[in-house]
Amino acid sequence: MSLQALIDDALAETPPGRRVWVALSGGLDSSLLLTLAARAAHRHPRPLYALHVDHGLQDASCAFVEHCRRLCSHLGVPLFVERVCVDMTTGRGLEAAAREARYAAFAARLTAGDTLWLAQHRRDQAETFLLAALRGSGVRGLGAMPAWREWAGMRLARPLRDLSRANLMCEAEAMGLEWVEDPSNQNEGLDRNFLRRQVLPLLESRWPAAEASLAKSASLAGEADSLLGELAALDLSACGDTPGRLALSVLRALSAPRRRLLIRYACQRLALPTPPAGRLSALDEQLTAQRDAQVHVAWPGAEARCWREVLYLQQPLDDLPADWQAEWDGQARLASPLGQHGMRLEGGGGCYQVRPRQGGEVLHLPKRGRRDLKRLLQEAELPPWQRQAILVVWDADTVAAVFEPRAPAVLAASQGYSAKTWPAE
Amino acid sequence: MSLQALIDDALAETPPGRRVWVALSGGLDSSLLLTLAARAAHRHPRPLYALHVDHGLQDASCAFVEHCRRLCSHLGVPLFVERVCVDMTTGRGLEAAAREARYAAFAARLTAGDTLWLAQHRRDQAETFLLAALRGSGVRGLGAMPAWREWAGMRLARPLRDLSRANLMCEAEAMGLEWVEDPSNQNEGLDRNFLRRQVLPLLESRWPAAEASLAKSASLAGEADSLLGELAALDLSACGDTPGRLALSVLRALSAPRRRLLIRYACQRLALPTPPAGRLSALDEQLTAQRDAQVHVAWPGAEARCWREVLYLQQPLDDLPADWQAEWDGQARLASPLGQHGMRLEGGGGCYQVRPRQGGEVLHLPKRGRRDLKRLLQEAELPPWQRQAILVVWDADTVAAVFEPRAPAVLAASQGYSAKTWPAE
Repeated sequence: MSLQALIDDALAETPPGRRVWVALSGGLDSSLLLTLAARAAHRHPRPLYALHVDHGLQDASCAFVEHCRRLCSHLGVPLFVERVCVDMTTGRGLEAAAREARYAAFAARLTAGDTLWLAQHRRDQAETFLLAALRGSGVRGLGAMPAWREWAGMRLARPLRDLSRANLMCEAEAMGLEWVEDPSNQNEGLDRNFLRRQVLPLLESRWPAAEASLAKSASLAGEADSLLGELAALDLSACGDTPGRLALSVLRALSAPRRRLLIRYACQRLALPTPPAGRLSALDEQLTAQRDAQVHVAWPGAEARCWREVLYLQQPLDDLPADWQAEWDGQARLASPLGQHGMRLEGGGGCYQVRPRQGGEVLHLPKRGRRDLKRLLQEAELPPWQRQAILVVWDADTVAAVFEPRAPAVLAASQGYSAKTWPAE
Repeated sequence: MSLQALIDDALAETPPGRRVWVALSGGLDSSLLLTLAARAAHRHPRPLYALHVDHGLQDASCAFVEHCRRLCSHLGVPLFVERVCVDMTTGRGLEAAAREARYAAFAARLTAGDTLWLAQHRRDQAETFLLAALRGSGVRGLGAMPAWREWAGMRLARPLRDLSRANLMCEAEAMGLEWVEDPSNQNEGLDRNFLRRQVLPLLESRWPAAEASLAKSASLAGEADSLLGELAALDLSACGDTPGRLALSVLRALSAPRRRLLIRYACQRLALPTPPAGRLSALDEQLTAQRDAQVHVAWPGAEARCWREVLYLQQPLDDLPADWQAEWDGQARLASPLGQHGMRLEGGGGCYQVRPRQGGEVLHLPKRGRRDLKRLLQEAELPPWQRQAILVVWDADTVAAVFEPRAPAVLAASQGYSAKTWPAE
């Protein structure tokens, strides 16, 4: 299949009427992709746009913008230029910072339902695989760049991903394409350039198909990663299908690698950071060796605890300071050290005190009479670590209601009071 | 943990009373491993042996054998030298041929229950990972060398696998160890040596932890591979738990990569060659698009066919030539173009003719009377491609019995005859 036919097909597969963007750096790959896309759009009409992200990192920036304007004007494709500021203070290096700034620019300009085409090709894929292996990555990283993925409601696709750089160069020269060589590509201070200029040529001197082979391994690793996702989803459903609460009896019956896979997968489903390898091993050791009450493993942004044969994965919980208290009218959103809570209470005079649990509280429940709060919390199956973060609402000397502020939920309301909650916005 | 303590632990984990072998080349790694093993055996007594495989490939062979004798005599460890002949006619290269000869020597010398220690270390692991990636391997290949595996009833283990070459060198020098440098290690005509001498130093000049990172990626890929085995085993049990017969309704409900994984796994369980990628795709396409009767994909040593909503994976079946026939006494092993068949028939005169099915055959069954063979084959659920490979045994003008020679099985025996089969030796 010719390159043009391939791009025709890719464009035909985008939803008619929705915008298709080409991320245009001004180099060979993206200039070629935009040109092919513009030609394809004659046969498969789509609202086609080019987006140039100006990192402002080098003197050549102007030449890039100028080239992009000329090419887009020649092709009749509207061009948007996003000037970004690369945050070099993250400590993660220039390449990562520039990438982050670029994606922020994509997110700012595109809207849900749009498609964004990126011009990475097979050599980029081979490099990404090697970079992942040089970081000691697992199959997720070795899988390198997917042919497409959903991102913030948009579709990111790489129509040239499986094509060799030589193939693209050949096509560009045949069509008399002009492009700008990025002088930063010469900078071997960047890992990727070192690989491209030093390592890949050495590999190819011995294994002429190195680029294709490395890209093939990347694609098989990506396939393995997605199959592992299917395995984890099966195991999650056996664990009760709630990513934040996994049945320990099921977890313990799995092999250790499979248990670790499931825990990472559950964290992803909860949008929690996944545990680093060391924390995951510590958790696995505790799960198989310790009694529930002693299991507690935390990592930045998340923690794991056990209670009543269930593993809880959650954001780390703070306790309420024992001496904290607040006045509350029963209507307004209540602020506590734990955040803002959507709660309402009716039946009293509208002049309440809210305090943490102290112990010994008693409620008078409709039809059930006098009940210890301690017993009520046990009945509600509230894990112990949540019991120091509940809000006890006093109406003078009476406990009017008790809230669990995170769910949020009403744990109990005394006779004559009516309480409700709603989720945080 | 010190290197010696690590080897002490590894030796303590081998079954007491069973032999432990060290594959001894005479180079640094295996000389060190044997020395450590001999010391460990003072604390954890095991029958310890060294095995040197003499490939006879280079002039230095004698120096190796001589060094091995000296070392083993010094350590008091019995040495066995296996002289092998490397078959260079396979077309798979010197390294593969030497490896094959080496494993044949292991198999010849060791017996079931023995443990064999190989001295590969972390740099070997990093190289194996890169070699796999340069072949475009999936996670099985990228997983490189497992820490241990069962092989022909023996246990192959690599106690040094996760240790750096620098670490081993340091230890060897500290103990004043002597070893022989293998001159073939200088030969960059061998892929592994090219990687070791050209590629790894270049990578390490930029990424000092390259060896460790590549080995880490290998280990994660190996873990992914074993998890994929668990997924395939789950899917196989959903398909009916018979690797040679997979329910199409289950297969079709799987994602295409998962279906391919299952088919490869089922072939491995059957000890059939796995289909090459192209054949697997062709099969997958036929499975989802074609009617059963048209599905037929073959690859060297195996084939896939469908019948009655079941996918059959099997050795390729030959038909019996239509004009073939043989005399048979009902007792002796019967030879046909399909092989040797363990069958017995009693009740007739012991002078039978065996022929392929021609069509129109009729049997007289005990209690059931006259039956068409065609109908009987349908009742037996014999797939169509097996119906031209059955043996019809005639006693003069009577069909005495019908055999399926591969299972092997008796399909039917007429009134007055008694038939049985036994598996091939």
